[in-house]
Amino acid sequence: MSLADAVNDPAADSAAPSQRTRVRRIARRAHYDAATLHAILDEAYVCHVAFSDEHGVHCIPTACWREGDHLYIHGSNGSRMLRLAAEGAEVCVTVTHLDGLVLARSAFNHSMNYRSAVIYGVFEVVTEEHKAAVLDAFMEHIAPGRRHEVRAGNRKELAATTVMRIALAESVTKIRTGGPKDDEDDMDRPVWAGVLPLTLAPLPPVADTAAPEREAPAYVKAWSNRQDG
Amino acid sequence: MSLADAVNDPAADSAAPSQRTRVRRIARRAHYDAATLHAILDEAYVCHVAFSDEHGVHCIPTACWREGDHLYIHGSNGSRMLRLAAEGAEVCVTVTHLDGLVLARSAFNHSMNYRSAVIYGVFEVVTEEHKAAVLDAFMEHIAPGRRHEVRAGNRKELAATTVMRIALAESVTKIRTGGPKDDEDDMDRPVWAGVLPLTLAPLPPVADTAAPEREAPAYVKAWSNRQDG
Repeated sequence: MSLADAVNDPAADSAAPSQRTRVRRIARRAHYDAATLHAILDEAYVCHVAFSDEHGVHCIPTACWREGDHLYIHGSNGSRMLRLAAEGAEVCVTVTHLDGLVLARSAFNHSMNYRSAVIYGVFEVVTEEHKAAVLDAFMEHIAPGRRHEVRAGNRKELAATTVMRIALAESVTKIRTGGPKDDEDDMDRPVWAGVLPLTLAPLPPVADTAAPEREAPAYVKAWSNRQDG
Repeated sequence: MSLADAVNDPAADSAAPSQRTRVRRIARRAHYDAATLHAILDEAYVCHVAFSDEHGVHCIPTACWREGDHLYIHGSNGSRMLRLAAEGAEVCVTVTHLDGLVLARSAFNHSMNYRSAVIYGVFEVVTEEHKAAVLDAFMEHIAPGRRHEVRAGNRKELAATTVMRIALAESVTKIRTGGPKDDEDDMDRPVWAGVLPLTLAPLPPVADTAAPEREAPAYVKAWSNRQDG
């Protein structure tokens, strides 16, 4: 993601689960352990799913959540992406968190801090009998306890929904952290250098006004507190 | 991106520049005007590029910036993605901003607020003579004025960098805003409903300690102020 990517480092190659998950550019940023992968996925609400059909390659954002060794997505039965995925299309699923802009003393060494996860494979359809439980887990991830407060999906709604999962077996994470890596000759340059950090942050909750407002549950209050803190 | 995507709306079809940019799921969320597209791209630091090769489909995050009717990316000459793109690979480039979690009164009607842009096409390589100016524009986008403070790229650094651009001609944006859309029968349910908004927010700048700290320029001070405000 950087002008600084002009370094090739063969480290960590042996840990890659496949040829296409072996990171070639700045391989020291690659990680193949489950804990790192899970942490990146569990912080995400959205992934990008790449797949191809007769019209070309597509890259579609969609909601996601992890349970165990799988990443889940869902949507309407009518979704082209889900239909192709159900037919066994090869996909690549990517989650990216942008953590900051890295301002170096030379233009070339500017970079970005980020954490990304790339998963290769094929989705499998979650069966009718497991669908409700898997969607409940998604709701728990978004808003703990809320699944007991809302109207649960009825048979018609569940039937209209496709839920799919992809195994995390063929995956790789890539992380850049820390400050700029400048050339020795540039260190005396009189320019501010450092990181402008970024984070996906909560803003104050907005209650729906289409009906009288109900008391905010714990996860909504916590959202406000995250904002103040 | 939602359980609520079970609606098919043929509106706006006529404005789609191609069959593959015609939004089929909830077409009322689709937009094809340049102003909407530019606003989404100009707020982005990162896009996801999907392409395929003999190993399958890939989805890679990379820095991006817009100038006029093109979106630009850059990287090391050694990047597999850039090499394939330079060979004329068909790509799909997607920018997504997640704006909030939409909590409805039924599980099925939960959704997310987002703005996404999807661009189809082929990248073209920016020629040597235009490369420096285009990278300057990127720096201006990130940190206005900084290009006059840092050491400019030398011939070797510029030669090691590939810059590419893709025309915005075949693109589509999709936007969801506002509160939950609940079924009439669910409106009396005693559950909090509304939006938990999200935004990519600045955190306080972190000066690099590898050399004595220099005075923060205007764009670094503005970053702090954005954080306080």
